[in-house]
Amino acid sequence: MIRALIYGVTGYTGVELIRILSSHPQVEIAGGSSRQWAGQRAAAVFPFLRGERDFPLHSSEELQAAIKGDVAFLALPHGESAALAQRLLDSGIKVVDLSADMRLRDAEVYAQWYGAHKAPDLLDRAVYGLPEVHREKVRTAELVANPGCYPTSVILGAAPLMKMRGIDTNTILVDAKSGISGAGRGAKLNTSFCESGESFKPYSVLGHRHTPEMEQELSFIAGRPVRVRFTPHLLPMSRGMVSTMYLRLEEAISAAELRAAYENRYRDEPFVRVLPDGTLPDTAHVRGSNMCHVSVHVDERTGWVVAISALDNLVKGASGEAVQNMNLMMGLTETAGLEGLPFFP
Amino acid sequence: MIRALIYGVTGYTGVELIRILSSHPQVEIAGGSSRQWAGQRAAAVFPFLRGERDFPLHSSEELQAAIKGDVAFLALPHGESAALAQRLLDSGIKVVDLSADMRLRDAEVYAQWYGAHKAPDLLDRAVYGLPEVHREKVRTAELVANPGCYPTSVILGAAPLMKMRGIDTNTILVDAKSGISGAGRGAKLNTSFCESGESFKPYSVLGHRHTPEMEQELSFIAGRPVRVRFTPHLLPMSRGMVSTMYLRLEEAISAAELRAAYENRYRDEPFVRVLPDGTLPDTAHVRGSNMCHVSVHVDERTGWVVAISALDNLVKGASGEAVQNMNLMMGLTETAGLEGLPFFP
Amino acid sequence: MIRALIYGVTGYTGVELIRILSSHPQVEIAGGSSRQWAGQRAAAVFPFLRGERDFPLHSSEELQAAIKGDVAFLALPHGESAALAQRLLDSGIKVVDLSADMRLRDAEVYAQWYGAHKAPDLLDRAVYGLPEVHREKVRTAELVANPGCYPTSVILGAAPLMKMRGIDTNTILVDAKSGISGAGRGAKLNTSFCESGESFKPYSVLGHRHTPEMEQELSFIAGRPVRVRFTPHLLPMSRGMVSTMYLRLEEAISAAELRAAYENRYRDEPFVRVLPDGTLPDTAHVRGSNMCHVSVHVDERTGWVVAISALDNLVKGASGEAVQNMNLMMGLTETAGLEGLPFFP
Amino acid sequence: MIRALIYGVTGYTGVELIRILSSHPQVEIAGGSSRQWAGQRAAAVFPFLRGERDFPLHSSEELQAAIKGDVAFLALPHGESAALAQRLLDSGIKVVDLSADMRLRDAEVYAQWYGAHKAPDLLDRAVYGLPEVHREKVRTAELVANPGCYPTSVILGAAPLMKMRGIDTNTILVDAKSGISGAGRGAKLNTSFCESGESFKPYSVLGHRHTPEMEQELSFIAGRPVRVRFTPHLLPMSRGMVSTMYLRLEEAISAAELRAAYENRYRDEPFVRVLPDGTLPDTAHVRGSNMCHVSVHVDERTGWVVAISALDNLVKGASGEAVQNMNLMMGLTETAGLEGLPFFP
Repeated sequence: MIRALIYGVTGYTGVELIRILSSHPQVEIAGGSSRQWAGQRAAAVFPFLRGERDFPLHSSEELQAAIKGDVAFLALPHGESAALAQRLLDSGIKVVDLSADMRLRDAEVYAQWYGAHKAPDLLDRAVYGLPEVHREKVRTAELVANPGCYPTSVILGAAPLMKMRGIDTNTILVDAKSGISGAGRGAKLNTSFCESGESFKPYSVLGHRHTPEMEQELSFIAGRPVRVRFTPHLLPMSRGMVSTMYLRLEEAISAAELRAAYENRYRDEPFVRVLPDGTLPDTAHVRGSNMCHVSVHVDERTGWVVAISALDNLVKGASGEAVQNMNLMMGLTETAGLEGLPFFP
Repeated sequence: MIRALIYGVTGYTGVELIRILSSHPQVEIAGGSSRQWAGQRAAAVFPFLRGERDFPLHSSEELQAAIKGDVAFLALPHGESAALAQRLLDSGIKVVDLSADMRLRDAEVYAQWYGAHKAPDLLDRAVYGLPEVHREKVRTAELVANPGCYPTSVILGAAPLMKMRGIDTNTILVDAKSGISGAGRGAKLNTSFCESGESFKPYSVLGHRHTPEMEQELSFIAGRPVRVRFTPHLLPMSRGMVSTMYLRLEEAISAAELRAAYENRYRDEPFVRVLPDGTLPDTAHVRGSNMCHVSVHVDERTGWVVAISALDNLVKGASGEAVQNMNLMMGLTETAGLEGLPFFP
Repeated sequence: MIRALIYGVTGYTGVELIRILSSHPQVEIAGGSSRQWAGQRAAAVFPFLRGERDFPLHSSEELQAAIKGDVAFLALPHGESAALAQRLLDSGIKVVDLSADMRLRDAEVYAQWYGAHKAPDLLDRAVYGLPEVHREKVRTAELVANPGCYPTSVILGAAPLMKMRGIDTNTILVDAKSGISGAGRGAKLNTSFCESGESFKPYSVLGHRHTPEMEQELSFIAGRPVRVRFTPHLLPMSRGMVSTMYLRLEEAISAAELRAAYENRYRDEPFVRVLPDGTLPDTAHVRGSNMCHVSVHVDERTGWVVAISALDNLVKGASGEAVQNMNLMMGLTETAGLEGLPFFP
Repeated sequence: MIRALIYGVTGYTGVELIRILSSHPQVEIAGGSSRQWAGQRAAAVFPFLRGERDFPLHSSEELQAAIKGDVAFLALPHGESAALAQRLLDSGIKVVDLSADMRLRDAEVYAQWYGAHKAPDLLDRAVYGLPEVHREKVRTAELVANPGCYPTSVILGAAPLMKMRGIDTNTILVDAKSGISGAGRGAKLNTSFCESGESFKPYSVLGHRHTPEMEQELSFIAGRPVRVRFTPHLLPMSRGMVSTMYLRLEEAISAAELRAAYENRYRDEPFVRVLPDGTLPDTAHVRGSNMCHVSVHVDERTGWVVAISALDNLVKGASGEAVQNMNLMMGLTETAGLEGLPFFP
């Protein structure tokens, strides 16, 4: 069995890693860290772990000292991963970093959005872990930067358009909507039930930190600079993300041609489904699964292409994708542990 | 007291009219119709009406024959209002029609989206009841077409931009999100709790019927043709609507200039609030009130203006706006019965 | 106009007082305090107050020094009301205390559940503000202890049974369920959307602090000691409370007799409705209103009476009841400002 | 691979069977029936089945004629299972019936609650499929009556008390709360989002059909007649069920003694967890898993025992339990396919 460590195991991406890995046929959880609950057992935080699946929660330092694993998942706040990743790599442990620390290739761009980078030397070693774009590099990587939830949703939804004739890819308008688990597990007034239930609202209208990540990857795919105009909103639900994307038509394209581009691009992808005509993405149809559903539409009347993607922000947008990356890094079947159907209703 | 009739009183816009009118100082509910529950009393459908506020439910025909009122609200499905409106007008009753039947000036456009119009002669007599645009005409109207929820949200959110220099108003991209009450009160699988709770999804991506209504009114304001690229989505909540709108910049505009345009336009409007810098529209802040909150933003980096509006689809998007129109038609204070604060949390 | 002060105006009972009082024909809000937001304006916390309804937020001390009102609502945490109430009374201001500080007549009982009382001398001056039980005393009171939400729900639901023959009132079993707003407005993990949405759970199974309050009042009504076995649960919704109560039958009672007892007791009560046969209490039918819906059932097969009540914990369970008490204390019509229909859906 | 048939595959228990069986290592879905969607493919109803997991939907008659399986799950309305079960058994297919048709041993009792039984001869062959009570009989059964969701929750929560000294088991008071999926997948007004979200309400206060089932099994365990006073309520959430049960103390019992009884009873049960002191059942901790969490409390002050259980009504309350029964009937490991952790948050 491959021995996995989870740093930051008591947050939502951490507990989702526990859920996924506990059904993984070739991986076992070797240990976990939690700043807030170090010294207690996992079942004290998550009562459903009581029994055979319980394990002690360490501080990050204790976990590094005490337990040697094969691969570490870093489900930590931005800024905390860099130094830790360096130490883990030095001791021969492969790393999947779920924070933003390793996602941007350019330390200066990182500094503009997050502050000075703490381990810029690592950026060259990190592979951006979107398997649908960088699969072969992920296979040989020792350090994978797991993409953000919004970038996964946007890149998968728009990638097939990036090299099509007749579409203006200079600027993509992205109107995105996320479930509340995307805001993390800390107690905050604006994510309390009474303030966020029966509420829908935009946030960070100018300058969300996921913007440069989307631009970096879409530009890579397009082979030239792509800008993203990005507006995130908060949904009154726990999990689920929809990105609705708008690109201007420069010349006529048929719906059939568009669909064919998507189907070609994703034919062999295990975790992307192009929906048939008449079916639209719905977060309820991907919840709890590692699947991303996409549809694409052409509005000839106004001259715009509309692409829509739906995924579960904690699975394909975070922990499921992280396991998918780990599978590739460790030479396992890419879909191992990730084949569960969504949780409906 | 002004005597109001409510046709279709057992749907969501009907019961919201009951709620609003029951607090109106100058109006009383003289009678109501319900196709499904005719012959029963209102409290059998809505137990909270038991007591002094109960009243019998008639069929539409019975109500016309039995009760003479001063004004009638038609909260009926599209296609059922036209003939009824004619009869009510003939007997001297003013009409606020909440269906789509009277909203489009051009019967041919109506036919494209809804089928042949049943009373095209009435279209010339109908005033589009968005007081913020057509207030003076509403004051003297006998027949008011109450706007759709999406059009109210979009027109109020974008109107101040329609005549500004430097903004491309040829096409507006509208990404809109509505609470489930907008789908009406019928029992449908896709609006059941289990299918629509913890779910978010687009619908009618190409060709929602509210599109021509938005285009008609925005073109009127702009003084030239405006096209709307409209994508509605369904939110897992009962009430509330946000429209996020995107317009391309043709030359630089400052945030201050944009805000000033909104503040000038809405300075004297009782039911539109331009939010201060740092505050964004949130459906939770307008729920149950007749208020529309708007904000406007300029993204210089990508060259787009983003305008956002939030309202309660059953109040400012339907029944509250209908009462606002009635107040104007009957010579009452425009805000009468509509001054309640939102219901928070 | 009567000038009202609201201490603790930025919590949920505080903002609900704003909502109710803003529609009250004879009361104006003269000032408000907030520990957390003192120095800011109310609209910074609640954007819907922007405009004429905005007002400055003071510290408690500043508010006492600066603004003289006729009546003060204390929407403060337990333990903070006592000393403040004394000072306000001394300066001739009537007080409605929404905390638990004045509810128990016996300082020793208070001490067992809350710790030592800070102003035990006040207990004799305080009237327990459940108008359906103590209306005449409330009329002449200078200090009213506004009941807890659970006690209001339980006392109204069970009162008519307390003196009926054939019912064992020694012990009442109360299985109660509350919306999340009852837990207050602080940011806590267990009331975050992700932890409390799609979740239902009991809490404080042995020893909830509202128990002695229920026992005090039910014993008063019964004229002999009544014990309450009380189990509260947390519902995944913002507002609403249902108490399901079980009392053992000692001899046969007909459903008609039971219903008659309820109807007699509540015939003239403006805010309690006994539901007709076939209709059951539903929080959706009282949400936002000051109404309490009750039903009563006899299960001959097993020998138990089941009484059920539903109310909105922030209205009849807190701020609406507080306004009802104020109306009585100030000689106003008891229902003034409280006649709004519920907010449905 | 064992070949399983699912009759009624497009309801909520049907699709949950698909989800569970698709991860089961020794079972494959051989075919499914749907009255409403016969002739279409499963992915037309559930888009997430698109791809390898899609299959055609047959009418019940077609499925019987066309496909031979090893075991059939009947997820059909009450009254439809009996005749079908007979035919399947005749052709050598083992049957797990999720309807109520086979649960009551006494056809007369069945008739009182459901109407005349259509295949009373089968009742003797059916085993009540609660493995924690009848495990050995299930192993050899050809026809298993899968318990109702409420009975599973109540029997597991109360069983250890049935033979303890000092507890009055003549009558158990059960106050139960269920998520909306328990009401099935049909479109109904009272389970629409707008009517059931932000709503909590009792239903069937006198005479819910699950009552005789609970009484039958609790009486069996106790060895003498037990009556159940049962009050179900509807929760504003999709999945999850809590039963709060009250039994009168006849003599003093310590909390330790009570807990020991539960721990002894459930020590070897894979799907029942007795929670440690200080932890209470929460539907969020069992959602999506086959686990039932229970806690037990003694209130010495009032003389009552309170037992509480939580489970997912679609898993341990229906489809998960059905698979657990199938595992036993087919000689598989009891926990096969059922070991997934809950879906949190």
